[in-house]
This record gives sequence, structure tokens and C-alpha cells, in this order.
Amino acid sequence: MSPTVALDGMGGDRAPAEPVRGALEAAEAGVHVILTGDSQALRRELDAQGHGGGKLIEIVEAPDVIKSDEEGARAVRAKPASSLVVACRLLAEGRARAVVSAGNTGAMMAAATLHLRRIPGVIRPGIAVVVPSARGPVTLIDVGANADTRPEYLPQFALMGRIMAADVLGIPEPRVGLLSIGEEAGKGSELVQAAFAAMDGTPGFVGNVEGRDIPKGLVDVVVTDGFTGNVALKLYEGAGEMLFSEIRGTFERSLRGRAAGLLARPLLRELRHRFNEETTGGAFLLGVRGLVVIAHGNSNGRGIANAIRLAARGVGEGMLEAVEAGLAVPVDA
Amino acid sequence: MSPTVALDGMGGDRAPAEPVRGALEAAEAGVHVILTGDSQALRRELDAQGHGGGKLIEIVEAPDVIKSDEEGARAVRAKPASSLVVACRLLAEGRARAVVSAGNTGAMMAAATLHLRRIPGVIRPGIAVVVPSARGPVTLIDVGANADTRPEYLPQFALMGRIMAADVLGIPEPRVGLLSIGEEAGKGSELVQAAFAAMDGTPGFVGNVEGRDIPKGLVDVVVTDGFTGNVALKLYEGAGEMLFSEIRGTFERSLRGRAAGLLARPLLRELRHRFNEETTGGAFLLGVRGLVVIAHGNSNGRGIANAIRLAARGVGEGMLEAVEAGLAVPVDA
Repeated sequence: MSPTVALDGMGGDRAPAEPVRGALEAAEAGVHVILTGDSQALRRELDAQGHGGGKLIEIVEAPDVIKSDEEGARAVRAKPASSLVVACRLLAEGRARAVVSAGNTGAMMAAATLHLRRIPGVIRPGIAVVVPSARGPVTLIDVGANADTRPEYLPQFALMGRIMAADVLGIPEPRVGLLSIGEEAGKGSELVQAAFAAMDGTPGFVGNVEGRDIPKGLVDVVVTDGFTGNVALKLYEGAGEMLFSEIRGTFERSLRGRAAGLLARPLLRELRHRFNEETTGGAFLLGVRGLVVIAHGNSNGRGIANAIRLAARGVGEGMLEAVEAGLAVPVDA
Repeated sequence: MSPTVALDGMGGDRAPAEPVRGALEAAEAGVHVILTGDSQALRRELDAQGHGGGKLIEIVEAPDVIKSDEEGARAVRAKPASSLVVACRLLAEGRARAVVSAGNTGAMMAAATLHLRRIPGVIRPGIAVVVPSARGPVTLIDVGANADTRPEYLPQFALMGRIMAADVLGIPEPRVGLLSIGEEAGKGSELVQAAFAAMDGTPGFVGNVEGRDIPKGLVDVVVTDGFTGNVALKLYEGAGEMLFSEIRGTFERSLRGRAAGLLARPLLRELRHRFNEETTGGAFLLGVRGLVVIAHGNSNGRGIANAIRLAARGVGEGMLEAVEAGLAVPVDA
């Protein structure tokens, strides 16, 4: 049985058109989607995109919208009837098994912490994302939930990232590296040196890795603070975009290039697909009591649909339960 | 008149063959190079590479070698007769105008600080490197001189990086961005927020930039702490290498690919050249009283020659004097 996923119908730069497109694509693949937002606007968009009224898409009214530049925590308190908050509440109330939004990341974190709460024992939630490498997908955590990180967060990020790599990507016994600026144990900032010590005994931990080891795919999970992780993620995406764009430009500038481009285009498109955030669709917010997927703000319908599928896969694989089992402490601890 | 550059003849993974190759290439271009190291080994290598005994290459004996895995400061104290330390001393003694090494970065920093000393007023030296972007070269500083950074270092890194961008790259009025995880002033870690405030009034400062803005080339100089900068540099280089390698693999896997590859190869090679660290050849250690260029440990002869040319350009443009003028404080300050 396919799970029900709540989708923030007004989240992202291209809402509601692209969330609706994504919902339709996911519904065709059998996922039950609840769209939140201005129900008239959503209905209109569904009609415009030729939705025949199938049972797999439902709408829940949410008149407010949180914009991408609003301060997250404040916006969540001020707008309880926003599409993002209502989607989170559907999950908290058990009407959905996962929530997806391409909207304000800070608001999503605030809404998830407020309405779903942290898993007992989790110090701080972390955002995990899947990036490509020469040897297959690499899970990078934290990519921005915490701008400032304490050493003791990192072993928990490692555990959560490892469960995600195992359950969502199907990697048996994922290997975990701590992002640093030298391979030896003593290398790195004070934070990383303390984190290295704190990581002692963490399952799968193999030691420090460097920036170049992410594209190399030296380990399956790379653990880092949210500042470095966010810089790394955006740089990695940007490097790929820049390079493909430069290659396209090179191919356009000469007759030889145009001939090469004609032959190479489908091959490069396939390769680029791997480098595109839309192939994974989104990031998991891990450490809260519910499956939360944050999609790119500029996601198109395909990206949203991938994010929904990612959420559905997480539900199907029992990822939340695995994280809870791996990290939960007894209530009286 | 071309300047004299001291070159660590035993520095790097491929010494002495590649340093000697680089010295020969630079000498052909008119740079006077003093090679330091085991003089017999260097002489033998020069002979093997067909050096006719021109006047532009000199050898200064230095029997010891600092290995790449030695702790820098300790190695510099223990091995005053190493090729790296002797090369630095040639600069300190005025026999050379710049020093280049592909050896141990930590040792180079320690030797430079010990024998050249910091420019008065400079809190901490920083390592600046030039990386490619869609809009031309971007100067990134610090890429690893300081694993832990205090906010007040960053305005100095900005000033030094800006002088390098202007003098070495010829960029008029370089624009400076502070690497963060959001464009707004309040975004980022506590360090970056404090640095943002400290950057107030720094010439050319335009505000925060994100990881993706490096490949985009949004600004000419990107300022960051040595930890984030080192991760970013290695990730950026690694992303380029991985992608070109994946493209090559794609071209090899089908008949269509092989045909495309035949046409595309020279175009991609040219593009790759921009993405290769050997096009810039090295990083400047800025903030010490001498021009110090650190080349990649795995540099080939071309890379070493480029590093020597980079050093010679810095000398020719009076970069050191510009940094001193920009940062020096009166002795009684």
C-alpha cells in the first residue's frame, strides 16, 4: 500500500504550478498526495493541468503562504494557517506519513520542531542530502540545519545519515567519514578534532575525509557542521552547473564543437541528470518525529515528484522507525 | 630584469625530477632559478634532462628533506639544512626575490613565519589561491593557513586577497564577498556574522556570497576561514576532475560516444586546462615579509614552472610592497 504524503502546494519559487505538476506525477505512480494551500488556486491549477479528478489527490485548505525570505520561526508562529504549517500538521495528526515542501527551509525546520518535535535523545536535527560521486550516491549531513555546531551533534548526524544511506539508498554497512582538512586524526579545526574524538565507536566511522573525497565517493556518508555542509553542497551543485554550461558554450563556438555537441548531447544529458539535484529531489530533515523532505526552492514538477517518491521510499523502508530505534533514549534517561 | 626565484628542488611528490623540469622551463622563459637540495642529485637530474649549463639555473646545497607527512613547525626546527628551509632563507637573505615549494605546506608556513616573519600589523598569514569561474579567475583566501579563524582575521584576508587579484590577475577594483550560507547580513555561523561586522568599511566588500557563487564568479575575491576554504578548494578541484573523468568514461562506452569524443577532445582539453590547478600553479602565502608560493604537492614540471612564473609576476607587480603598504602599521602603533 502506498503511503499518503502531505505536499506544501504553495512552497517554492514556482508554486502552485510545479507542486501541482509534481503531485500529479507522483499520484500517477501510485502515491496518495494531500496538497495544502489556497484550495481554489490549487483546484484551478489541477484543472489546467488536465487532472481528471482521480482519487489520489486531495486538497486541504490553507489560506496563508510563508515566503522564502521570511524568518522561519517567526513566520511559523505568525502563520499557523499557512500551506507549510498545515502540511506539517497533517503529518503530526497522522493524516499523512510524510511531508514535502519546496518552501522556506528555516520555516520547515521550525514547523517540524514545533509540530512533530524532536526524537527523544536527539540533540539537534540535521539536514541530509544525497549527492553524486564517481562511485555512486553520497549522503552529506548536515547541510544547513545548524549554522553553529557542537562536537556532540556529529556522532548523531553520522548515525542518522547512515540509516538514511542504508534504508533509502540500499547501501549495506555504509562507511562514514568526518569532513576535515587532512586525513590524520589530529588535523582540522578545534571543532573537528573534538568531533573526531566524539565519533569514536560510531558504527561505520572510518576517520577524516577531505573535500575532494566527496566527488571521489571515498565514503558513503560525509558528516560535517551545517555551515561547511551548506557551502559544500552549493559549491558542488554550482561547479556541476558551471561546467556543463561551459561545455555547452564550447560546443556552440565552432563548427567542430557543434558537430561534437550533436553527438554528445544525449550522453551529456544523461550524465548531467546524475549531477542534478532533481534526481534525488530533496533533503531529509532527520531527528524529528516524522518524515520531512525539503525540496529545492526552484524545483520543477519532476523535482517535486522525486521528492515525494523519496518521502514515500523513506516511509516504505521504515526510516523514521530506524532513526528512532538508533537514537532514542528511554524517557527516564 | 627578471627576478631570481628560489625553488625547493626536493619538494613535492615527484621531486627532484619535476622541480628540475619546472626550473628548466622557467629559465627558458628568462627567470633566474636557484634550486635547493642534494646538489649531486639535482645536477644529475639537470644533466638527464639535457640542461646545457645555461647561467639561469643555480644550485644551493641542502642535504636534508622535509617529507610531506612531517609536522611542519617541528620539521623546520629539526631540519635547518632542508631544501625547503634553505630556499626560504635565500629569500630572507635577499639572494632571491621569491620562494616556491611543492613540499609540505605546514612546513612552508612555519619556515616563512620563522625566517621571513609576519608583516607588522598582520594578525595571521593566509593562503590565497586562484580558482576558475564562469566569469574568470576568483581569488579564494584563506584555503588552509588557519584551521581556526577569528573574525578579525577576515578583513585582513580581504585586503590581501584584493591586492593579489589586482596585481597578479590585473582586476581593477576587485569585489570582495564573505563566504556564508545565505546572502543576508544576519545569515551564517557566529564567526561569519562577527566577520561581517568586522568587514564593514573594507574596500570592495559587497556582502555575503554562497558556495554556488564561487563557480558563478559573482565576486573577484571570496574570503573565508581556512577550514571552509580548504574544504571548498579541494571539493571544487575534485568536482572538476570527477566530472571530466565521467565525461571521458561516457565517451568511451559507445560508438556514438567515441565519435563525439574524437571531435570534442581538443575542446574539452582546453576547457579542462582552466579547471586544472596547474594553470595557476600555486597559492600565495600572504602576510609574511617575502613572496611565498606554495605549489600543489603533485605538480608536474609545467605546474612548477607556472608557480615560478606566478612568483615572478608577483615580484614584478610589487605585490609584497602593496600588501605591506596596505596592512603595515607604524612600529610604535
